[in-house]
Parts: sequence; C-alpha cells; structure tokens
Amino acid sequence: MNNPFENITILDFTHVYSGPYCTMLFADLGARVIKVERPGSGDDTRHYLPFKNNESGYFAYLNRNKESITLDLKSPEGKEIALGLMKQSDIVIENFSAGTMEKLGLSYEEARKVHPDIIYASISGFGQTGPLCHKAAYDNIAQAMSGLLRVTGYPDQPPVKVGVSIADANAGIHAAFCLMAALYYHEHTGKGQYIDISMMETTMSVLENFVIQYTLNGVVPERMGNEHSASAPFDVYVTKDDYVAVATASNRLFSRMQDAMGMDIMSDPRFAENTLRRKNYVELKPIIGAWMKEHTTADIVSLFDQAGVPVAPLLRIDELVHHPQIRQRGMMETQHHPIIGDFEMPGFPAHFSEIQTPVRKAAPLLGADTDDVLAVMLGFSKEKIQELKDRDIV
Amino acid sequence: MNNPFENITILDFTHVYSGPYCTMLFADLGARVIKVERPGSGDDTRHYLPFKNNESGYFAYLNRNKESITLDLKSPEGKEIALGLMKQSDIVIENFSAGTMEKLGLSYEEARKVHPDIIYASISGFGQTGPLCHKAAYDNIAQAMSGLLRVTGYPDQPPVKVGVSIADANAGIHAAFCLMAALYYHEHTGKGQYIDISMMETTMSVLENFVIQYTLNGVVPERMGNEHSASAPFDVYVTKDDYVAVATASNRLFSRMQDAMGMDIMSDPRFAENTLRRKNYVELKPIIGAWMKEHTTADIVSLFDQAGVPVAPLLRIDELVHHPQIRQRGMMETQHHPIIGDFEMPGFPAHFSEIQTPVRKAAPLLGADTDDVLAVMLGFSKEKIQELKDRDIV
Repeated sequence: MNNPFENITILDFTHVYSGPYCTMLFADLGARVIKVERPGSGDDTRHYLPFKNNESGYFAYLNRNKESITLDLKSPEGKEIALGLMKQSDIVIENFSAGTMEKLGLSYEEARKVHPDIIYASISGFGQTGPLCHKAAYDNIAQAMSGLLRVTGYPDQPPVKVGVSIADANAGIHAAFCLMAALYYHEHTGKGQYIDISMMETTMSVLENFVIQYTLNGVVPERMGNEHSASAPFDVYVTKDDYVAVATASNRLFSRMQDAMGMDIMSDPRFAENTLRRKNYVELKPIIGAWMKEHTTADIVSLFDQAGVPVAPLLRIDELVHHPQIRQRGMMETQHHPIIGDFEMPGFPAHFSEIQTPVRKAAPLLGADTDDVLAVMLGFSKEKIQELKDRDIV
Repeated sequence: MNNPFENITILDFTHVYSGPYCTMLFADLGARVIKVERPGSGDDTRHYLPFKNNESGYFAYLNRNKESITLDLKSPEGKEIALGLMKQSDIVIENFSAGTMEKLGLSYEEARKVHPDIIYASISGFGQTGPLCHKAAYDNIAQAMSGLLRVTGYPDQPPVKVGVSIADANAGIHAAFCLMAALYYHEHTGKGQYIDISMMETTMSVLENFVIQYTLNGVVPERMGNEHSASAPFDVYVTKDDYVAVATASNRLFSRMQDAMGMDIMSDPRFAENTLRRKNYVELKPIIGAWMKEHTTADIVSLFDQAGVPVAPLLRIDELVHHPQIRQRGMMETQHHPIIGDFEMPGFPAHFSEIQTPVRKAAPLLGADTDDVLAVMLGFSKEKIQELKDRDIV
C-alpha cells in the first residue's frame, strides 16, 4: 500500500475536543499523530465521562489511531525534547490559551528555529491577537460570543446552546482544512507557516445568512425555534406520540404534502405560495399541527417518505446508532481497547474510493509510546529515558 | 506572487449552502471555482433573503470569488459542455439528490472517462448508498436524523433545532477537508477518486461524547438545556437585565468565581468538588442564580473577566459584527457588488501567515462568465455561444 499520509508526522499538543477532533481526522487518514500529554494526569478528557472499567470512552473515541507520550513542558529537558520532536515533525498543533506556548519557549518562532518550514496551528477561543486573545473559552462561551447561542431556541423561551460542543468541533474541522491547505502549499512552495484559528470566528463563519441580514438591511435576526426565515412549513410538529420534522421550500413539495395529508390548503390564497405560507405561517401552523396531532410519527414519516416530502423523526442517540443507514454504510466501527474491551464508535465521517480510513488501533494509554518515540526519534538510551521518568519529566 | 491554489480548477455543481460553503473556502484560497447554474433562475439562493436592490445577500456572501456559467444539464449540448469542462477541471463537486448526476450522464464514472484522475465529491443528506440514499434532506431533516435536534433544548420543553443550518455547513467543511486530502493524495500518487459525504454522518461525527455514552454504557443522552453532562456550573443564567454564560470545570475556576461573587460556596460539602457540584447542581443553581439576578450582565462579565472565570454575554448578531475582537482581527471584509453596492461580510475564518485569503471579487451575476469559459476553455466561437443562448442551453 502506498499511503502518502503515513509520511506526515503531527506533534499534537491539543487537549479536550477541538484539537483532538482535528488530529483524529488526520490520524484516520494514516498520519502519525504523536499526542503530548502531562505526566500523571494526561489530557483532561481521560477523566471525562462516559467510563467503562474506569477508562474514559470520551478519550478513547477521539484519540484512536494516535500515539501518546508524556512530557513536562515546564522543565528544561521537556522543552528540549519538544523542540527535538518539532524538528522531525511536519505539523505542530496546540490549543492552549494564547501565550502559553510562548511562555514555554515552544512558540512558532522557536519551532521555526529548529525547523524552518514547519506548519504550526493554534486553536483558541478568540484568536492570538485582539483585545480578547487572553480570555478563557469553553464551548458555551464561544457559542455565546459568536451569536449562535442567542439565535438558538424558542422565541418565547430563553436562548439555549447547541446540545453538543459544536463550537469546539467546528473549530477543529476548520483547523483540519487549513492544515491540509498548508500541507498542499508546502508541497508547492517549500514554505511552512503559522495558522491562527479561533472558535469565535469559525462559528461566526457558519451562521448562514444571519450576519448578512444585519450588514445588508440592519435586521438583527432573532431565534425562531424550529422555523426557517425563508420557508414554511419548515418546522417540527407535535404528533400523536412524539415529534416530526418537515421541510417544504417550494410549491412542488407543499403540494405533495397536502396531497399526502388528504387536504387542500393551497387553494386558500393565504397559503398559495411559499412566501405567503411563510408570511401567514401563524395561521397555517395550527391547521397542519392539528392534522399532525392525529397521526403517529411513524405513520407520518412513512406517508411523507412515499410522497417525496422531506420528513424525519427526531432520532434518539440509540436509534441513530442502530439505524440501517448508519449500519449499511459502515459508519460505526468496533475497536478493541486494552482496558475498555471491544466497543463501537463512529468512524471517519466520509467515504473515499481510494484513501483508506480505518480505526487501526485503540487510543493509547497515557505515555504508551514515550519510550519508543524518545528512543527512535531522539536516540535516547533506556537509561536516559528511565532517568527522565524517575524525575517525572516524561 | 506564487499561489499554488490558483492552479486548481473546481467545477462546482452545488447549490444552496453545504456545497457553496465548501467551494467558498477554496475560492478564498485562490482556487478557480466555476459555478454551474440553471439558465434563467440559477442557484435557489439567488432568491433567498436578505435582499438589497432585489439582489440576494445570501448568494453574494457565499459565492464571492467564484465565476458563474449557466448550463442546461438536461440538454445533450449541456451535458457535452459539462464533460468538456470536467476534462479541464481538477475537482468536480455536486450536492444534488443521490442519482441525479447519474441520470444526467455526469456521474463520477462518466467524468473518469474524460478525465481519469479527476477528484469528484458528492454531498447529500444520507449518502450515495444505503436505504435512505434517495431520501430528500434539508438541514432540519439532517439535524433530526443525526440525533442533534433531539439533544438540543431544555429538558422540560420540546427539542429545538440549532438556529442556523449547521448540518449543511458542517457537511460543507468536512467536504472541504476531504477534497484537500484528495488533492494531497493526488500529488503523491497521481490518482483521483470519488468522495461520498453525507449530512447525517458528518453531523453524527460532531456529537462529542453522546454516541459513546450509548455504546459504552447504554445511556441514551437527553437534552439538558445550557448545562453540560460533566461540569457545573456550566450554564446560562438570567441576570438583572439579560443573560450570561459561565463555565467552571475545575475547583480552580469555581474558586475564582465564588471569590468574585463574594461568596463561600465550596465549604459546603455538597459543592466542594466539580463532580459534587454537577451531582448537586439542582441545589447549587438557585444559589448562583439568585446572585446573578441581582447583577447586570455587563457587571458580571467585567467582574468575572478580571477574575479569570470563563464568562460571556449572549451576543446579538449586531453586537458580534461590531465587536472589537472581530474588527481588530479583520474578520469582516467589505466588497463592492455591482448591484448591492458596498457591503460587509465575514471573511475567511482563519488566519494564515503565508496563504492569502482576500475577498477579491464580488459574487458573479448569473452566467457572468459563460462567454469567457466557453470561449477560452472549450474554444467556442461567438456565434456558437449565441446560438446556445438563443436555445436556452446556456
């Protein structure tokens, strides 16, 4: 096999979610990802739920296919080792607070001195410059500061954050794209570079037309529950037994929907066109809602699916995991973890015809690859490694 | 200037949001993106709000830096032109329903015949295979089918979709990463390939630890408003005048917070550790909530910022656009559009030290580049192009 990603080495100083999601994607492609962790405790997520046999599934999922070394970056020897590894790595990535790598003597400027064409990415809450660069950020802080939190939720209820840490994940996948672009640039120019990625900006970048509504017309978009500013019905309804999501953005789709419901709604001039249905949705919603309440979700999905109307049940996580679509496409992969045992996790989220993206190995135990990396990459003797271990440097 | 992305040509059959977000990122890097649109009406988003001078800001934002040609793909000449352009493009991307490009005679298999090492990506709701491959999907359908919708919202309220079309954007950025990976693979192997990206799988991929909670322990995660399964307080509170988001995931941070509040909470054994605060949060929440209601958001943010406690107001879109952090980092760019006039939009969402990512040109008017593309890339005469226009083929 000829996998060009196997020749890429990433020295990974990231923790928790944004950075580890980014490097997971590279590790899945086959890149060598050397995760650098604090001696003793390691990445915080080694202590995040869910647990099995006292081992974190959170960590095990996001750090598959990676190696782990421990390193006390605050010690002079730790810093020297980190620079020695940067010299032999193609990519460095970190998601500490802005300024931390500088304080440790491991900034891009220091990395360049030992490896002039290195690619070096930083992910942070607000970026490496500007008045907020030192402000601490967790996912909910980034959701709040990017406008996303305020526009999610029902108009008559308080705003609500996205249920999962989307600002983290979104920064991570944007970082992955930028790193891949920098690799391509390096191939053609021989130049490395620095990449500054923030959760605030990457989240702002996925607000669809919300920012433009303001810059074009001064409109400040508000949250609107499950509705859409441009189409109706584009909503979630209460059914006889649960909920159902539907989306009709055209007369073609709405016509199919009213036929499936056995109703004639479009002959009412208030509801004849998508723009009118959106404008008069407050009157249309109860008409459709009354019908939905008389039918089960399963019946509505079946009926609308047959009619070609975009429709969906609101899947629970267990229903998602067992869904035939997920199963038949091989999106869940089983991996044997030495402590957790066999367990299933989502695989790489796309399918290439050439590039292979298997979960090849379980996430590493803390420091599992320290000896190997120090011996092979830096030529350290067993005695020297033992001495560093005795002093808690690795 | 030596910009290697200028040598990449993308033939872009995408519309609305997921695909156009993907190709916007490439266009920002400098790649040539030739957007293929329906004669007459073009991309649906040319008719999506917001409008100024009857021109869509939605379209103008997401299609900057691109070219536009019109082409009736259902006509034999349209198909021939499309294949002729595929021959000279590095990447093809489309986000029609699965099977549409096959019906048009423009599938990956057809593209390979004219261009053996082409890279060809499809974005769809559920993927190109499996029982749901032909099911129609809009963003809310994908949010529902990936579990995201059900886990967003308050526990005592119905689930709510993410306010923006995150399933679309997230599929788009994953596609961009995969395309860049395929370009890198092509550099090293000379091989093109097909990439199958679905909104359902890419959304499932960013559910943090939710899937693993189920596969490891059989726990089906439910929505929990603004709270986090592993930390407390990690929440949004009502203040004297609005809301505020806070995040404390450790004793260090919570200690700072109680000091800033002038309270001693941690000496109560129920709240001594993060795990206990999470466990007893139903009792802790009203204690903190009462304090929050007596203070304004601005005062709380100022106080907590000084104390190093992660905190944020819930920015409105107008506050986001004018925020000094966004301004000082140059995240908003002004572009002159021939019909809209000057307007501001979010720029490329990351900062490279080498790669330049300016908004170089306004989004194209429908078919603005048809003549040029047909003449230069395919050698068509003026007369031939006029004849195709007269017959509504371009």
